[in-house]
Amino acid sequence: MAILLDGNRTAEKIELNMKTQIEAFEETTGIKPGLAGIVVGDNPASASYVRRKRRRATAIGMFFEQLKLPESTSMAEIKERIDALNRDERVHGILVQLPLPDHLDPHDVIDLIAIEKDVDGLTTLNQGLLYRGKPCLMPCTPKGILRLLDEYDITTEGKNVVVVGRSELVGRPLATVLAGRSRNATVTVVHTRTREVRQITKLADIVAIAAGKAHMLDASHFKQDVVIVDAGMNSIPSDKTKSGKRLVGDVDFESASKVASHITPVPGGVGPMTVCMLLENTFEAARLACGEP
Amino acid sequence: MAILLDGNRTAEKIELNMKTQIEAFEETTGIKPGLAGIVVGDNPASASYVRRKRRRATAIGMFFEQLKLPESTSMAEIKERIDALNRDERVHGILVQLPLPDHLDPHDVIDLIAIEKDVDGLTTLNQGLLYRGKPCLMPCTPKGILRLLDEYDITTEGKNVVVVGRSELVGRPLATVLAGRSRNATVTVVHTRTREVRQITKLADIVAIAAGKAHMLDASHFKQDVVIVDAGMNSIPSDKTKSGKRLVGDVDFESASKVASHITPVPGGVGPMTVCMLLENTFEAARLACGEP
Repeated sequence: MAILLDGNRTAEKIELNMKTQIEAFEETTGIKPGLAGIVVGDNPASASYVRRKRRRATAIGMFFEQLKLPESTSMAEIKERIDALNRDERVHGILVQLPLPDHLDPHDVIDLIAIEKDVDGLTTLNQGLLYRGKPCLMPCTPKGILRLLDEYDITTEGKNVVVVGRSELVGRPLATVLAGRSRNATVTVVHTRTREVRQITKLADIVAIAAGKAHMLDASHFKQDVVIVDAGMNSIPSDKTKSGKRLVGDVDFESASKVASHITPVPGGVGPMTVCMLLENTFEAARLACGEP
Repeated sequence: MAILLDGNRTAEKIELNMKTQIEAFEETTGIKPGLAGIVVGDNPASASYVRRKRRRATAIGMFFEQLKLPESTSMAEIKERIDALNRDERVHGILVQLPLPDHLDPHDVIDLIAIEKDVDGLTTLNQGLLYRGKPCLMPCTPKGILRLLDEYDITTEGKNVVVVGRSELVGRPLATVLAGRSRNATVTVVHTRTREVRQITKLADIVAIAAGKAHMLDASHFKQDVVIVDAGMNSIPSDKTKSGKRLVGDVDFESASKVASHITPVPGGVGPMTVCMLLENTFEAARLACGEP
């Protein structure tokens, strides 16, 4: 039976450790790391995500400011607010909760964030640095996946890694970093246009998937002792829960966990690592802002 | 016997066609597309590369300005010169010939170029756009490789493509664009840390290599009817030439051409396409500068 890559426990450990570091940092510098979250409109899911980020940020001693802007906010108004946050010394990280209302282009909005406060790692310039293999604030989900592998001493050096999905938030940055000189994996990116997925995943030592398709892969796609990281999060019907739904990943956990050496549960695998890395990026931005490495 | 992917003939055809378009463009707009090439120091190879670019640019009706700066040029001085070129209306493209003297960081210098004049596609912001799949000036060698495939009606859609090498100039941007939504290939990047290269290349429908290692791959690495694009350019000893040397690619052409359906010669394959795409990027920058699509 596979070892579980436990994101809940790992994130908790990292955040507990960060809490101590933040106390020490505040004591020596007088600075509290600060994160600002912008929500535009009344999407209940967005509100809930930002609440969770606020709760975990404040729990480890960060300052958190939420900006709730009306659905009708114009590009000029949002620019004014982000410019103010870029200048605000209490704020070291700025996140724009997606999705935005249709009249706002998410990339135009994100590119307003000063690169040193871009803790989601999504400005074009930050992505250019990532792509070039330069120091930068890395997007939180791929960073969380790499950290989870590190915590379980799973190296990617020289390994065949298959990344399923090529999204801007997960698959693309993950594949890019894995193929670079810091990780040295031999990476194949599989996506909706790939023929013969199984032929490719069968060769993989590690498979990371963020395809958004419940149970896309099962045991038949993997070789024995593969490491599986599942960033999928899909709601499917269930007669065993009160809500009539349950959350599953992109991998059929039940069958895949019989061939894998290590596998992430869903939920409780990649998910908790994402917010944890957002907090880590914010602390990193705060340290850089006051000249610490 | 494989069909040759003839870069000389293809580049000549594209440049002839561009010459006609540039004449028409100049007639309607009064603007001559202009390219500025900066050489720092006395590297004879750099001087020769820039001469070749000048010759081919002027042959199709472009304006070409060469800046020859002394080896001792400081960062402040080069910034002043690039700022002036950024403002110069006669110049639509700026290239910095590499390598630069050791005291100048090539990326710091390249990032001085205005993004709309970055015809080598190497500024961090331009690379961020490329990585994000957005319109941008694409680096010349990968653009030339894709164009060569297009000219021979070789589609990459759904194909297994192996890119050997992960350099900033060739492998990385090529793999990134191929894996994106415009090309939809299933891409694997192979590099110096890859184990079992043959196992991976054997599955490829198309192999593109820029590894800088003479005869790294031979017939035994490929499946029947593979398409081979060889961006390597290595000088090896030869008793058949006056100079005692000859140029070869990263692939053993003699054996590989017996299994391939299509293959680039070296020289005369990818090489001529690179300068051709530099000229195309310059013309594109000129058209964009005066509001044409």
